[in-house]
Amino acid sequence: MPRISEKGRLMPASPIRKLVPFAEEAKRKGIKIYHLNIGQPDIPTPRVALDAIHNNTLEVVEYSHSAGNESYRRKLSEYYRAIDIDVDHNQIIITTGGSEAILFALLSCLDPGDEVIVPEPFYANYNGFAITAGVKIVPVTSSIETGFALPPIADFEKLITSRTRGVIICNPNNPTGYLYSEGEMEKLGELIKKHDLYLFSDEVYREFCYDGHSHFSAMHIKGAEQNVILLDSVSKRYSACGVRIGALVTKNMDILYTAIKFAQARLSPPSLGQIVGEAALDTPQDYFDRVSEEYIMRRNLMVDMLNKIDGVVCPVPKGAFYTTVRLPVDDADQFSQWLLSDFEYDNETLMLAPATGFYSTPGLGKDEVRIAYVLNKEDLEKAMICLEKALKAYPGRRL
Amino acid sequence: MPRISEKGRLMPASPIRKLVPFAEEAKRKGIKIYHLNIGQPDIPTPRVALDAIHNNTLEVVEYSHSAGNESYRRKLSEYYRAIDIDVDHNQIIITTGGSEAILFALLSCLDPGDEVIVPEPFYANYNGFAITAGVKIVPVTSSIETGFALPPIADFEKLITSRTRGVIICNPNNPTGYLYSEGEMEKLGELIKKHDLYLFSDEVYREFCYDGHSHFSAMHIKGAEQNVILLDSVSKRYSACGVRIGALVTKNMDILYTAIKFAQARLSPPSLGQIVGEAALDTPQDYFDRVSEEYIMRRNLMVDMLNKIDGVVCPVPKGAFYTTVRLPVDDADQFSQWLLSDFEYDNETLMLAPATGFYSTPGLGKDEVRIAYVLNKEDLEKAMICLEKALKAYPGRRL
Repeated sequence: MPRISEKGRLMPASPIRKLVPFAEEAKRKGIKIYHLNIGQPDIPTPRVALDAIHNNTLEVVEYSHSAGNESYRRKLSEYYRAIDIDVDHNQIIITTGGSEAILFALLSCLDPGDEVIVPEPFYANYNGFAITAGVKIVPVTSSIETGFALPPIADFEKLITSRTRGVIICNPNNPTGYLYSEGEMEKLGELIKKHDLYLFSDEVYREFCYDGHSHFSAMHIKGAEQNVILLDSVSKRYSACGVRIGALVTKNMDILYTAIKFAQARLSPPSLGQIVGEAALDTPQDYFDRVSEEYIMRRNLMVDMLNKIDGVVCPVPKGAFYTTVRLPVDDADQFSQWLLSDFEYDNETLMLAPATGFYSTPGLGKDEVRIAYVLNKEDLEKAMICLEKALKAYPGRRL
Repeated sequence: MPRISEKGRLMPASPIRKLVPFAEEAKRKGIKIYHLNIGQPDIPTPRVALDAIHNNTLEVVEYSHSAGNESYRRKLSEYYRAIDIDVDHNQIIITTGGSEAILFALLSCLDPGDEVIVPEPFYANYNGFAITAGVKIVPVTSSIETGFALPPIADFEKLITSRTRGVIICNPNNPTGYLYSEGEMEKLGELIKKHDLYLFSDEVYREFCYDGHSHFSAMHIKGAEQNVILLDSVSKRYSACGVRIGALVTKNMDILYTAIKFAQARLSPPSLGQIVGEAALDTPQDYFDRVSEEYIMRRNLMVDMLNKIDGVVCPVPKGAFYTTVRLPVDDADQFSQWLLSDFEYDNETLMLAPATGFYSTPGLGKDEVRIAYVLNKEDLEKAMICLEKALKAYPGRRL
């Protein structure tokens, strides 16, 4: 039997994967599970987007342009211009989800063995794309004590080698919910320009900024136009994760010319998803207002309840719909498994994402979990009560 | 400005790309272009598949399972069983088009620097996936004199080195339309087993077999179950290229376990496309009968007309909807460009795909083009007349 590739062996399984059998067993026993482990929002996709797909009159579902339909890209450039990101439709490549945008960006800019610095904890799938492209992720650690703010620039400087080619940020952040300030972004911009690095800026949660804070995009950094690659997606913005539509946006024409060659090899992004993405641009503002209000209400409820639990530390996330929380446990991986295998309260339990999967440095995040507040208020409340009871009962509780 | 990656520089632009500006200029001059250059069928997508998308009742377009919806995979396994490919739903990973299936297969099985042997001319995008995975395509040349039959196994043997890890075939073939016989497949199977290689079998044109010939799948080769990876797609079968739904199918559980990790990193294949793909499995047989009849009629018309043109050699393709033809010209790249820039007959011209883009060996295919017979009879007839007139007028005609 022929052997599997080295990359295939290195690819991490989903951090949730080892919990799945325990979740399935719990379900078999009739236990209800609150899923706080994934970023699959429960919010309905905008009506205007769903209608577009019901009413489409295609007779042949054809390939689109490899960069995506021109009508969609033109309309998307208006969306960007309205938030002061001055790009035209030729500076946008529609991708198969934000995932493909990340992959095309790494493949276009980095050689195997090159390094990219990423503040940790970070979105675990960056590991998969880095392995695919053969590049090395070098973590720079952010801390729960500062609410997961951008690590000091001096910490980045220490990690720069002759192989360093870029920095990846996610803003607002998954898994921490942290929103980088204009000041932090400007400092990062100085670093990027000083060392002539790429800045890969994953801004798929752009619309999820709370408490009056506004989003400062990497595309707003002056003088970094040739260095910044914006990675975007409709998944979270319109609660349409399944359409698999994202975008790679940059003013650097060399990157566009290169990335489009990768796009041509895979022919085109999904045509039906593009119909949804284009129509979704007409989503009325009150949709976003209601969604934002809903998430703020959930966040406030959750953060309040978490911080009232003895030994729990939860910063107040200013964006996205995640928070990374410290729990008074010996091992959050063990605890997450125990919740499914050995615990129930009123015949209910919850599923969490252990934070170790979001850290690259071994040993970090062992007492942290990521919680996605993608449940309605009532369920979220019950889930928090369940967590409180569980922490009291857990044999590995750390005082 | 930071530099572009080596892979980015190596990625080939689409072979058609340099013709596009000339086609656009011809259109501006009001010249009608018959597009014989791309495999975008004009056949309608089955009604049952289009209805499924119109009538879907999703309120949230969610991620699916990373391997695709279980209901779809179960139904797809029945489709395979009906053609004697005995797989269950756990041996199928739904991919974003056949493209992603090829990429996942190469990434899972080959290391950078490894070699894969491919009969040329071959589907040009294999180059892009090979570059992405860092693997080397080693061409074994098939010839128009034999109608592009499988090259002798001895020719494969000569190319095997310590880095050879597999063979890619496309059956029926794009760009030649050749259908490998059971005998050829068995011989290839012996080679694969002897050297313990992977056989990546791209069978996306499976339903397009003509003249009473039946399709012999790589999955039918006895004793090669652990070596064969089937790469599939709904694009051509249901004329639904834009849904971007394909599949990686194998009985080798190590490969499945590895490929699913790549699938998890990109979360899920398109949800709307999966609805189309699943519903399309209920397409009535008469759809395929009519489509087959249509393509046979077109093929016969085209092959007859081509072979009547002085100096043209066109084998009779037994499958798919392509043929690779020898033209009496000095340089088919030049000729294809000249058709758009300097020629018109009755204010019409045609666009062809120069075959050099399908050969890996420099210099081969210089007097060949690929023609996709994806136009209706009337247009195809006019296009062939146009080609005849053009070949008479072309200054680089070779006698």
